[in-house]
Amino acid sequence: MNILITAGGTSEPIDEVRTITNSATGRLGSLIATQFASLESTDKVYYVCSHSAIKPECDKVEIVYADSTADLQNTLTRLLTEESIDAIIHSMAVSDYRTRAVLTLEDMREISVCEDFEEKLCSKNLCTDGKKLSSYIENPVIVLEKTPKIISMLRELAPQAVIVGFKLLSNVSREELFEVAHRLLLKNSCDFVLANDGAKIKGDTHKGYLLDKDMNYKEFDTKQDIAKGITSAVMEGMV
Amino acid sequence: MNILITAGGTSEPIDEVRTITNSATGRLGSLIATQFASLESTDKVYYVCSHSAIKPECDKVEIVYADSTADLQNTLTRLLTEESIDAIIHSMAVSDYRTRAVLTLEDMREISVCEDFEEKLCSKNLCTDGKKLSSYIENPVIVLEKTPKIISMLRELAPQAVIVGFKLLSNVSREELFEVAHRLLLKNSCDFVLANDGAKIKGDTHKGYLLDKDMNYKEFDTKQDIAKGITSAVMEGMV
Repeated sequence: MNILITAGGTSEPIDEVRTITNSATGRLGSLIATQFASLESTDKVYYVCSHSAIKPECDKVEIVYADSTADLQNTLTRLLTEESIDAIIHSMAVSDYRTRAVLTLEDMREISVCEDFEEKLCSKNLCTDGKKLSSYIENPVIVLEKTPKIISMLRELAPQAVIVGFKLLSNVSREELFEVAHRLLLKNSCDFVLANDGAKIKGDTHKGYLLDKDMNYKEFDTKQDIAKGITSAVMEGMV
Repeated sequence: MNILITAGGTSEPIDEVRTITNSATGRLGSLIATQFASLESTDKVYYVCSHSAIKPECDKVEIVYADSTADLQNTLTRLLTEESIDAIIHSMAVSDYRTRAVLTLEDMREISVCEDFEEKLCSKNLCTDGKKLSSYIENPVIVLEKTPKIISMLRELAPQAVIVGFKLLSNVSREELFEVAHRLLLKNSCDFVLANDGAKIKGDTHKGYLLDKDMNYKEFDTKQDIAKGITSAVMEGMV
């Protein structure tokens, strides 16, 4: 059995030295990888993560680096095409946005009223080809755009695999969290989704709910329990 | 002798989960710390860095965490007030900018022409109190503002210390690099400045020039040599 786990967070370049990152550490993904690696039936765990992520140290784990969302897209396409993968645990926090343009606040205000705003946005971009933003600019403005949704590619690339998606919200009711997570599961043909709330994660305390498509769920209180729960659900086909 | 080294890079929050970071790893700062710790005359090395930075592992080194520029400012003020520090090696890549406001592109374009733009910018801010940006927004716009200059606080806080500043430019001539680095040295009353060019850093190959106020300099080709060169200059009072 081959398992693919994505972990940690992606980062998106603003310029040559600056990036937008998220605070995901890879700790949970690393525990999930260790859990799968401990099973006799597991042959290999592909652990796809950013350079800064926490990495598991087990014989069966192969680390594959992917930093930006574009890296991740290429890496997953390659792995899911070339290797036979039985389960995908997509715990990586993928940037929702990437940099479209960086310009001065003065330019931004000036072109805002222009009919050809989109073209002007390109022509005023200070960071084409990753060039470093000068620190003399008083108020740079970063315009973001959406990244492609990685989770929506998985089912097509791996029609037979068990897929576990992740949904992190912040400070919402359990009902709202379940509803949003379940929608993500259905939309992307996942088998399970781990729903969690950022406000209920602190150190190893980590409230998480593993849902299936019929809204059956199991509740967990620590990262270690979540890792065990996901592994069991993948192996047994149910929460 | 007590040494204070800042290393790695700061990160500035955009919202509850996203930050702007730079690509500094702390590798050079870590080598400098190890070099100082190896001297018999060194009693203690305070190593101020972000959580993600590479850290030296030596008995004499005390790790002090500072992630954002505001953290760094508070930490340095405390250390330089409470402890007796003989030399400061300020190698940390400090963010030039922090988040002022995050708004939708539509709002940005709309308020751009307003007379009371500054007030509108506050009222349209989506990420007050660190709130998480909704991923439903198509094109968020991040408006940045300058951070306080940490290097300019050092001489006042530590009138007697040997201070080594750092200047990183990218793809410039040696003349320009020297001029900008020397200006930084004079402006901030540093004793030395390490001038380097991002285009000439790759793995352990790291071209660096250590300048003094009279524009005397020494040239180095690796991080290890830079670490040794800085340590010697601080101990001997000359490049």
